[in-house]
Amino acid sequence: MQKKTGRILALAALLGCMTLTGPAVASDGYGDYRDRFEPLPALPPIPEDNSLTPEKVELGKMLFFEPRISSSGVISCATCHNPALGWTDRIPRATGHQGQVGKRNTPTVLNAGFLDAQFWDGRAEDLEEQALGPIEADVEMAMDLDEAIDRLESFDVYRTLFSEAFSGEEPINKENVAKAIASFERTLNTPNSRFDRYLRGDLQALNEKEKEGMKAFVDTGCIACHRGPALTDSNYHRFEVPGSTDEGRFVVTGNESDKFKFKTPTLRNVAVTYPYFNNGSVEELDKAIELMADQMLDRELSDEKVEQIEAFLHTLTGEMPEVSFPALP
Amino acid sequence: MQKKTGRILALAALLGCMTLTGPAVASDGYGDYRDRFEPLPALPPIPEDNSLTPEKVELGKMLFFEPRISSSGVISCATCHNPALGWTDRIPRATGHQGQVGKRNTPTVLNAGFLDAQFWDGRAEDLEEQALGPIEADVEMAMDLDEAIDRLESFDVYRTLFSEAFSGEEPINKENVAKAIASFERTLNTPNSRFDRYLRGDLQALNEKEKEGMKAFVDTGCIACHRGPALTDSNYHRFEVPGSTDEGRFVVTGNESDKFKFKTPTLRNVAVTYPYFNNGSVEELDKAIELMADQMLDRELSDEKVEQIEAFLHTLTGEMPEVSFPALP
Repeated sequence: MQKKTGRILALAALLGCMTLTGPAVASDGYGDYRDRFEPLPALPPIPEDNSLTPEKVELGKMLFFEPRISSSGVISCATCHNPALGWTDRIPRATGHQGQVGKRNTPTVLNAGFLDAQFWDGRAEDLEEQALGPIEADVEMAMDLDEAIDRLESFDVYRTLFSEAFSGEEPINKENVAKAIASFERTLNTPNSRFDRYLRGDLQALNEKEKEGMKAFVDTGCIACHRGPALTDSNYHRFEVPGSTDEGRFVVTGNESDKFKFKTPTLRNVAVTYPYFNNGSVEELDKAIELMADQMLDRELSDEKVEQIEAFLHTLTGEMPEVSFPALP
Repeated sequence: MQKKTGRILALAALLGCMTLTGPAVASDGYGDYRDRFEPLPALPPIPEDNSLTPEKVELGKMLFFEPRISSSGVISCATCHNPALGWTDRIPRATGHQGQVGKRNTPTVLNAGFLDAQFWDGRAEDLEEQALGPIEADVEMAMDLDEAIDRLESFDVYRTLFSEAFSGEEPINKENVAKAIASFERTLNTPNSRFDRYLRGDLQALNEKEKEGMKAFVDTGCIACHRGPALTDSNYHRFEVPGSTDEGRFVVTGNESDKFKFKTPTLRNVAVTYPYFNNGSVEELDKAIELMADQMLDRELSDEKVEQIEAFLHTLTGEMPEVSFPALP
């Protein structure tokens, strides 16, 4: 669904350009490369059973920042998915309840609605399924979900807001907590990156070095997995990450063939969502590019190519969502 | 200094009212009570050696939200002084590094610049002296200050911003970290509460019950300690808080007479900065009012009076500062 939307938007943008500034579209000589990409739509696909309403989004925002649904009372989704840090934490591995350090690097929430699966091992199909995991996880918020519901029940404000956002007898329940948080997260997108403006026809939005980076990104083969609007195939690939013994997708499926496989992460905003890989072991973007080329594509890139690809990846940083602090009860 | 400013502003407001709507000022019959209070100025006193500049405020805001100056990398000033929770944490006692629970309740940062001393025991004279304490405290951010400075040094952005905010050879130093954070905090004020509008001449900003609460607040004697623009005398008073063995001011001075004394907290925004007292042992505002009347003033208040005072205290909730998330490097 998202691909279709993306293509329609891209097509509309291209048509618009052809009509208004037709000749300019092909004039930079990178048209064949540009055609391999898709701009990021303003919104990800919305599931049929969780329509995106302002009431759910506002409630979901409050829950996202709500530390009292953690057992310590001080950890919220926003602790690790920190809006000041690209909606991630910029440390190698997530640090949660009582300072425990988890096994994996925190993925950004930005554009997460465009992914076909959640978590590094894809164990949740969608944002609704993902949302409750960290609340319960011992090393994250370490909270019993029933107790979290009880805490929310104790606030008049939440009783009102859940009633307004959801129908049904007892609207404060796990399913609705998940739906509200997922709804908020679907608004956390970063459209209008320089690369999106370029794809939509502003051929001066990228400079030559960045365009060469886009070309190298395609020619080297990165695009095989990093494709589509979010620059991920939402598929799993085996990769020997330095310092990692994590068995990845295997933990979910039990299939020997899934050992050490991880979901291809989005490259949207990759420049501001360091450090990289499932264990956050690489801090520099150029090192990450070299490692991926070597491991996944068996290619040793020249310093020039690495620099070009890095410059290109920097153009994928979009407009951060404008989110103000909620006033919690 | 703040009192002077406050009085000048109050006088200006009164003069304005007398000229424009003179008779209305005295018309609600509470003039003598109203005269006992001072509205909150827009800004607290600014120290001579730390002028309030936009550069310092912006840098201080980044540092306030910066978790990488904690040893875990996930705790910042904003963790306990949470903008979504009245710039405090709304749990009984501060919870910091590795989930350790401190001895005392987190005071709000709101209007802290109006206080003559910081911390429950007043061990810091001003916000500059206060700012570094929680970074180093074992149970809070647990960070060696030199290491915090090193981490800041590692970011180009901070090197630039410190240079712009401060003169001198090595602008990233402890003193300037404190000055920047203190500068940001001096902007976190909550003017224009309904009570301030009332004091400035809008006699309909409070209803009868709230005005009766103001009267009861004065008549009962609360105003003896809760006075001035921030409704605190910034002085220390002995008080047997339920469940507390904390020796308070004595820990700082070693004077026997200071045992179990605590600084009078501001009542500005008291309705949104629960729970109350040095150990956060009381969650309800009406219970806190009863307890204070009993312990400090030896008065048993009728339910009606408690309700009136509570209604009055709710009018002290001002306009929250509009603070957006900084973009950290």
